[in-house]
Amino acid sequence: MNKVILLNNRPEGRPQESDFKFTEEEKPTPGEGEVLLKTKYVSVDPYLRGRMRDQKSYIAPFELHKPVASGIIAEVIASKNTDFKEGDFVNGMLSWKEFQTSTGKNLQKVDPDQAPLSAYLGVVGMTGLTAYFGLTRIGQPKKGDTIVVSGAAGAVGSVVGQIGKIKGCRVIGIAGTDEKIAMLKNTFGFDEGINYKTTSDMKAAIKKAAPDGVDIYFDNVGGEISDAVLANIARNARVVACGVISMYNDEETPVGPRVAPLLIKNSVLMQGFTIGDFQADFSEGMKQLAIWLKENKITHKETIVKGFDKIPQAFIDLFDGKNTGKMIVEI
Amino acid sequence: MNKVILLNNRPEGRPQESDFKFTEEEKPTPGEGEVLLKTKYVSVDPYLRGRMRDQKSYIAPFELHKPVASGIIAEVIASKNTDFKEGDFVNGMLSWKEFQTSTGKNLQKVDPDQAPLSAYLGVVGMTGLTAYFGLTRIGQPKKGDTIVVSGAAGAVGSVVGQIGKIKGCRVIGIAGTDEKIAMLKNTFGFDEGINYKTTSDMKAAIKKAAPDGVDIYFDNVGGEISDAVLANIARNARVVACGVISMYNDEETPVGPRVAPLLIKNSVLMQGFTIGDFQADFSEGMKQLAIWLKENKITHKETIVKGFDKIPQAFIDLFDGKNTGKMIVEI
Repeated sequence: MNKVILLNNRPEGRPQESDFKFTEEEKPTPGEGEVLLKTKYVSVDPYLRGRMRDQKSYIAPFELHKPVASGIIAEVIASKNTDFKEGDFVNGMLSWKEFQTSTGKNLQKVDPDQAPLSAYLGVVGMTGLTAYFGLTRIGQPKKGDTIVVSGAAGAVGSVVGQIGKIKGCRVIGIAGTDEKIAMLKNTFGFDEGINYKTTSDMKAAIKKAAPDGVDIYFDNVGGEISDAVLANIARNARVVACGVISMYNDEETPVGPRVAPLLIKNSVLMQGFTIGDFQADFSEGMKQLAIWLKENKITHKETIVKGFDKIPQAFIDLFDGKNTGKMIVEI
Repeated sequence: MNKVILLNNRPEGRPQESDFKFTEEEKPTPGEGEVLLKTKYVSVDPYLRGRMRDQKSYIAPFELHKPVASGIIAEVIASKNTDFKEGDFVNGMLSWKEFQTSTGKNLQKVDPDQAPLSAYLGVVGMTGLTAYFGLTRIGQPKKGDTIVVSGAAGAVGSVVGQIGKIKGCRVIGIAGTDEKIAMLKNTFGFDEGINYKTTSDMKAAIKKAAPDGVDIYFDNVGGEISDAVLANIARNARVVACGVISMYNDEETPVGPRVAPLLIKNSVLMQGFTIGDFQADFSEGMKQLAIWLKENKITHKETIVKGFDKIPQAFIDLFDGKNTGKMIVEI
């Protein structure tokens, strides 16, 4: 049989196990031109929370009582498509199923000799690309700039910091445990780390770490952490609005200090983006990231959870910061 | 004698007449290399409110018990500087005095034959340049874009709308009286106008006027009007954060809906600026604006108040929207 995970309810607030439903269906048979895929690695990502909401966005919401989908690395175990052969590994936006068929459209072959398979879901995949394009295209780092990264120990944040160092910047990371802070400095080469859970005055802590102001703020979290960073923003700064994990579970639009006066006073750019904005340049980004990875200029952390049944909990755990680096479920 | 207007108190909330103090001093005599200037036209502008606050900003605060300064057109009535002769007219950041001396540094000569003298404080001066660079450099208008302008009947907003029309955009203006709305359409060629004071549901009104969403929002006001526009923002939109007149008098940082989720979801750019950011290109902008003015492609409105004694009240009246177009005091 073939296990499948459906969206059972649209979550209210923090997602729960009961928002998902396990079911079984027949293991499918590939038709002409199709491949049969066996799921190997499943990416769980904060942005999926948005797709669980019934609202217009850059990507259609998940349908209730249908399978959830995310970035998945799968093995081709049978092929009636001449572009793929048995034993190939592919990366695609696929359903949370143990087995599924595909026409091959929107599947990319990935090479396990170039990078570990799971890395294609992370540092050389969507999260690495998000860090790469967000920082280089929007953040426009110049040598000597001070960068602050929130969610710094996460899959995107940890790569942002490392690219920042490659570009000659001073990099300050914000994260929520002392272990993460130590890792930012010791593993990822950040210059400074601030534990927001044990720091009472974040505004003062950022001022101390960035006395000349913050030239680039790469924001993965939003909310009060961002307020504290913005209070220290430098003239002509760039705010890369990448994610708002602190707000994804809010049902009402959260309120906070209005930013327009600050943006005007300091001539600050704030740009929201999703990785799809840079789709045309993905191959350039993946190539650069793979080179840096091979040269050991960037390193990556993964939190790998094992077992198909653990997918929903791994997703939920994102909102408690239980992951270090990319959260991946290995099947 | 020589009348002078000093900053008497730092205003709390809305400025009042008592925040200013009239005094008299000797009419000065120009030293070697100096000119003696007679004030002709005084620009009063919302941004001056910020300089009355004792806080770090892009420009130093006014000192208490010292003269206030703003953009002024003056006549050279005596000259010991070879760059200027009696009868020249100059534009500069000058003190609120009837007469003053200057070394000539940072004074620009203006030609009354190219444009009316008061226009150098407006449509071919700072406010026109603010509209020109904010819209063209940050807004990046493309033919067919929908532009919404808040504070549309003001000195900046009215020029933004007209440049938008030159660029082939659909332009919707927001203002606070039916007279201003009529003028937006009849004088400045806006496609639509929305009176925010008589419209109960601004979000719905903007949706009706811009059913495909707002590609460029040129924001002169901030606050709840901006919230309603942002709720209708289009994918890849540009928000030109130019002014926040609705907030200049607030003593506490105002709160409102957080914008990061909206910016991310729609890949929106929001850029704050002050006109000084474009200083290197002022002559390009002034040239273009003067051409459009001569070709009657842009027109401008002024609210001219007469008398040196009226300067403080003219400034205060800005916050009640009593001006249509550029507010100027003629001496």
